[in-house]
Amino acid sequence: MKEPTAVEMLREHLEAGNAEAARAIFASAHPAAVAEALSGLGTEEMWAALRHAPLPVRAEIFSHIDHGTQVALAESITRGELAAVLAEMPPDDRVDMLKRMPEEKREAILPALAQAEREDIRRLSSYPEGTAGAVMTSDYAVLTPGLTAQEAIGRLRLEAPDKETIYYSYVVDSDRRLQGLVSLRDLILARPEARVEDIMHKDVISVRAEDDQEEAAGKIQKYGLIALPVVSSDGALVGIVTYDDALDVMAQEQTEDMEKIMAIGGAHEAKAYLRTPAWSHFKNRVVWLVVLALIGFVSGFIVQSYESILLQFAILASFMPMLADTGGNAGSQSATLVIRALALKEVSVRDALRVLFKELQVSFAMGLVLAGIAFGRALLFSRGTTLPDGYLPAQVGIAVAIALWAQVVTSTVLGALMPLGVSRLKLDPAVVASPALTTLVDITGLLIFFATAKAMLAL
Amino acid sequence: MKEPTAVEMLREHLEAGNAEAARAIFASAHPAAVAEALSGLGTEEMWAALRHAPLPVRAEIFSHIDHGTQVALAESITRGELAAVLAEMPPDDRVDMLKRMPEEKREAILPALAQAEREDIRRLSSYPEGTAGAVMTSDYAVLTPGLTAQEAIGRLRLEAPDKETIYYSYVVDSDRRLQGLVSLRDLILARPEARVEDIMHKDVISVRAEDDQEEAAGKIQKYGLIALPVVSSDGALVGIVTYDDALDVMAQEQTEDMEKIMAIGGAHEAKAYLRTPAWSHFKNRVVWLVVLALIGFVSGFIVQSYESILLQFAILASFMPMLADTGGNAGSQSATLVIRALALKEVSVRDALRVLFKELQVSFAMGLVLAGIAFGRALLFSRGTTLPDGYLPAQVGIAVAIALWAQVVTSTVLGALMPLGVSRLKLDPAVVASPALTTLVDITGLLIFFATAKAMLAL
Repeated sequence: MKEPTAVEMLREHLEAGNAEAARAIFASAHPAAVAEALSGLGTEEMWAALRHAPLPVRAEIFSHIDHGTQVALAESITRGELAAVLAEMPPDDRVDMLKRMPEEKREAILPALAQAEREDIRRLSSYPEGTAGAVMTSDYAVLTPGLTAQEAIGRLRLEAPDKETIYYSYVVDSDRRLQGLVSLRDLILARPEARVEDIMHKDVISVRAEDDQEEAAGKIQKYGLIALPVVSSDGALVGIVTYDDALDVMAQEQTEDMEKIMAIGGAHEAKAYLRTPAWSHFKNRVVWLVVLALIGFVSGFIVQSYESILLQFAILASFMPMLADTGGNAGSQSATLVIRALALKEVSVRDALRVLFKELQVSFAMGLVLAGIAFGRALLFSRGTTLPDGYLPAQVGIAVAIALWAQVVTSTVLGALMPLGVSRLKLDPAVVASPALTTLVDITGLLIFFATAKAMLAL
Repeated sequence: MKEPTAVEMLREHLEAGNAEAARAIFASAHPAAVAEALSGLGTEEMWAALRHAPLPVRAEIFSHIDHGTQVALAESITRGELAAVLAEMPPDDRVDMLKRMPEEKREAILPALAQAEREDIRRLSSYPEGTAGAVMTSDYAVLTPGLTAQEAIGRLRLEAPDKETIYYSYVVDSDRRLQGLVSLRDLILARPEARVEDIMHKDVISVRAEDDQEEAAGKIQKYGLIALPVVSSDGALVGIVTYDDALDVMAQEQTEDMEKIMAIGGAHEAKAYLRTPAWSHFKNRVVWLVVLALIGFVSGFIVQSYESILLQFAILASFMPMLADTGGNAGSQSATLVIRALALKEVSVRDALRVLFKELQVSFAMGLVLAGIAFGRALLFSRGTTLPDGYLPAQVGIAVAIALWAQVVTSTVLGALMPLGVSRLKLDPAVVASPALTTLVDITGLLIFFATAKAMLAL
């Protein structure tokens, strides 16, 4: 039993115009699977197919369609049809979609919705992107402290169809301030006449609406929660973030972190590589390439200023690429480890000395191995070149080995400490992008290299 | 209401020897929060604290302690105490911990467990690391098709304390083959006398035990599931993977992908940066550094073979670092985008031509911008160097600009196509590590550079 094969049948039924059979599949298959099955269709065929589904199912499938198609679909159907779907969609998905619609279309559809829905949309869309408030939903179950377990279950039974989850209910006072959490499991296990206030958990883990969405996802992961309540600054319950939102947030943040580390700019939309126009890709990528190329000029000036050494010891030029790459690689490794350790909260700025000590040990050892290899290369492959009178290949080898060792140590330590420094400044450590680091250690590496060569070869 | 402050009080109560107050907190605070609060203590103090908690709570807290401390704790308590905790721990956490214990300790503790638990441990630990089988748990709720909704709820009420979740129950036949899924919400909404077989969902989304854990996490995310059933090759239900496991899998895979992209080898354990000995860090990191340095020799040989050009046009050497870095950066950008798009399943190998077309457009444009900058630099800063008679800085500038443009295009395209090629070979695209790519495009870049210089400067 793998992916529901029923979904493959759905397309066949639709093609054959077999509405009855299609309806049966709409009733049984997972809305996400149906949305995927429909994803190849044009907006008109897609809507023709969706009309076979009863409205609540249609809205559920709609909320699983990717944002680009949602907007296209929304613009191709009537205002009444769209309003009916919007009224049934989960509030967080509804707001996500409306935010992506052109403003005049959005303004045009709002009057077709009921007052309560308009108010809900206004409230949910008031939180800035990236906050817990922007990913929360307003369809959560609420109980009052005085209900019995049996009454609470009865209440949930009535509300279940409209709620994102009924597995966690939140207990609030008359000011909507969060008093406790009771799970459906607690209610089922309790004596029917037990009061909610006696079985609820009072130490409720929550986030503020203005907290970062990563903070919310992190708590959901750490405590294994199905939903996390979101409270306003005065402690009132305003929404919940569910575990499936946390999974989406994690996937999105992961992409953004990786892109930041690779020096790709711009805001990120999930699943958008092929749909993003080449022009946006260009804009997101060219800025850093140019900035880094300009910084790279410094390397060029260093090489230019040591031209006379290169003219005497042309073999030194052949070590420049390896020196630069090895420094960049060693620095990227340590930077990645520290950025990741910071993200997982396993190290903090206070651990800087421990990190420094560890990276010094590691880089001393790695530097020795690489220095040995560079020395061997200098001895073995220097026959083709001519050295000035009185110089031996071993002397060049020693100079290169010392420079490479120093380059590995400084690059590794820089790679480890820069994310900590950036984090100290309350910035995202991932801005210590690997390309930026590579460009930086090129500069330090060339300075080390030529200074060492000058000193060792007594120039 | 932020992180439970009760946890801060726990440490105070423990220090003051106030066992009664500590017990109250053990009863109300989240086990993960308690585990965190205890994490600074030595194993003896930690165990002294845990003994105040009733056994089921103690086992829950124990399963939230990090693996290193778990093993240290397990070795410092008596066999009887450990066996009691193990018997109460969630089966998946129990196996995770036992796998990390030294073999002789593990063999010593097993006989102290009941037959059923030993059997469960043996079965769960038989799946290779990284599979769905290795992250699943065996504490899931099962129902038979003929039960009524009311009977099913009664059954779940009895079983709830021992199950990882009672929100999804799986319906199996007499051979334990998976027939359907029924949620607690379905049961609560159904008429009490409705039969499970009539309300269950028959199109159950599942994974095989030998499938990759990422596959399981991906389905949980895509379909927003609380739990995903795991079946054996003959279709029998063998376990479930829960949404919180999916969150952990995603975090772990994210770290591994990033480390792979940065060419860091070795198996990864979560939250281990500071605990991993410097020696292991050295081993995981030095191998790739050495391999890449050896490949980097090729760059050296290329430079060596064009020594005569460098002796005439020393200014060319000053463009080498920028050429190499820009190629590496452009290639890493496109590789990161494609690796991520493959991981999120938004592109597949079949899209290679679309990817190629997009990257060609982007790289042509980026190459033009960078070529312009390089040309400008050649004109502006070539005064310090001497060119052979009859050559103008503009000629050098044109050669450098053409070479840089070609380097940006080839690096970007290589960066985008290599992950697709690797994926075609059924390997993980993330092995197209950024350092490996950087080293490779160094080689292509130098070849392009010197060939262009030779042709343009008619050498």
